[in-house]
Amino acid sequence: MYVQRPIAILDSGVGGLTVVKEVMRQLPLERIIYFGDTARTPYGPRPAAEVQQFTREIVDYLIQFNPKMIVIACNTATAVALDLIRDCCEVPVIGVIYPGARAAIGLTQSGQVGVIGTEGTIQSGAYEQALKRLNPHIHVLSQACPAFVPLVEQGNFRSSETLAAVEQSLRTLKQGQIDSLILGCTHYPFLTETIAEVMGPDVRLISSADETAREISTILQTQGMLASQNIVPIHQFCCSGEAQMFKTIAQQWLNEEIVQTPVVWHVPKIGTLPKIG
Amino acid sequence: MYVQRPIAILDSGVGGLTVVKEVMRQLPLERIIYFGDTARTPYGPRPAAEVQQFTREIVDYLIQFNPKMIVIACNTATAVALDLIRDCCEVPVIGVIYPGARAAIGLTQSGQVGVIGTEGTIQSGAYEQALKRLNPHIHVLSQACPAFVPLVEQGNFRSSETLAAVEQSLRTLKQGQIDSLILGCTHYPFLTETIAEVMGPDVRLISSADETAREISTILQTQGMLASQNIVPIHQFCCSGEAQMFKTIAQQWLNEEIVQTPVVWHVPKIGTLPKIG
Repeated sequence: MYVQRPIAILDSGVGGLTVVKEVMRQLPLERIIYFGDTARTPYGPRPAAEVQQFTREIVDYLIQFNPKMIVIACNTATAVALDLIRDCCEVPVIGVIYPGARAAIGLTQSGQVGVIGTEGTIQSGAYEQALKRLNPHIHVLSQACPAFVPLVEQGNFRSSETLAAVEQSLRTLKQGQIDSLILGCTHYPFLTETIAEVMGPDVRLISSADETAREISTILQTQGMLASQNIVPIHQFCCSGEAQMFKTIAQQWLNEEIVQTPVVWHVPKIGTLPKIG
Repeated sequence: MYVQRPIAILDSGVGGLTVVKEVMRQLPLERIIYFGDTARTPYGPRPAAEVQQFTREIVDYLIQFNPKMIVIACNTATAVALDLIRDCCEVPVIGVIYPGARAAIGLTQSGQVGVIGTEGTIQSGAYEQALKRLNPHIHVLSQACPAFVPLVEQGNFRSSETLAAVEQSLRTLKQGQIDSLILGCTHYPFLTETIAEVMGPDVRLISSADETAREISTILQTQGMLASQNIVPIHQFCCSGEAQMFKTIAQQWLNEEIVQTPVVWHVPKIGTLPKIG
């Protein structure tokens, strides 16, 4: 059985492109429709009710593309809106928090796991809850890193300013005994090299992106919903904010994958969202 | 929502205990009922129809325990009997082949993946099929290793005889350019150290056990079927052959996990299967 409908992936901005890249790499037959809410990024400092409303608006928009699955590729939105979206959709809806939690549980030897994320994600306690729901013996150290998302949205991945911000944000966490650190925001994999440099070689970094792609694969395959092997997928990208910056970051980040696959830079129809491209 | 029913895990012998150990570690709240068909091991050299019949018999037995999920923790049985068992069960049924394939696709950088397994598994082409179903660009090198299962069933994990057998079996595969090697038989993780020594540090070994436990977690959690956090699970173990050898290997292998959890050595009721313990 083949299901050619796209996988809808949404994020507050460019962070969800880390999930897109892994889905393109691990499941190159699958078609993606992506929405980055770059006009309203970051979601991290916003009240939960507002994030729920934004997420709901984007899902309502993406539903028009008849997706076979919805992926909330934003930790903040997963933390506060996953259950809400699940309740109003007929297709499988997955977030990025449980995949990261599962990976950490699989990797940790010491049982001491660190989590970094936006204020919204850390304050929600969603990672601690997921980790302890699966394995109550895990000890969790959490740290909000509000400085990281703006750096990524500006494409500022590897500067001395970025290194200083990462060192400052992770100072407390470094004093703990963690052996695994969940990058609990889909923007953070853009900063992997800097975070690895600061945390040192004994701490394994866990990207939600890789794990989420693997769980998308698990759910589509076990439910008989993979795409056909004979069709080259055409991906679509939408953003709500300034189009050129989004397109530049997306092309830079997805480079290797994107050259092998046709891409449409889509024109969103929500409200007054500006045109891409 | 809590579902206290056990996870049923079956194998041709002791190999499936590698999956049990990972489930105990990753999901310590879940109750397990295990069946090792030690009287009829190994399944690898048997005709497909016979493996299908044996698997069906064991599932019919395990169904009495009202499991919430059935895990075919044997690659040979997964390769030839997974679809059959899925068709006759109402609960989710998962095998060990797709989890290993997904992990390899996630890890490989070169796209060159090796697979070792029993004759039955390798001849079925099930891994190659799964890998290419997910990602047609993956190049697969396969090698049957019929010498490995008898060594494990005898508890012979680290002798010079074992090293010689592993070197001999992997000679051809070592000449390939693989960067990831799927241990495509649940017995093989018992030989991880020896296999790693022979393949060298540039080849990452993928244990189906770890990945399968993670997929069990994904399916139970996304379907709202995890066990309660307030009940200590009591595991049950059954085997069809000589009980003492099975119990010795199980206790040795599960040692760390088992000391923290009560275990019942169960008396199977199929035909004339002998009593455990």
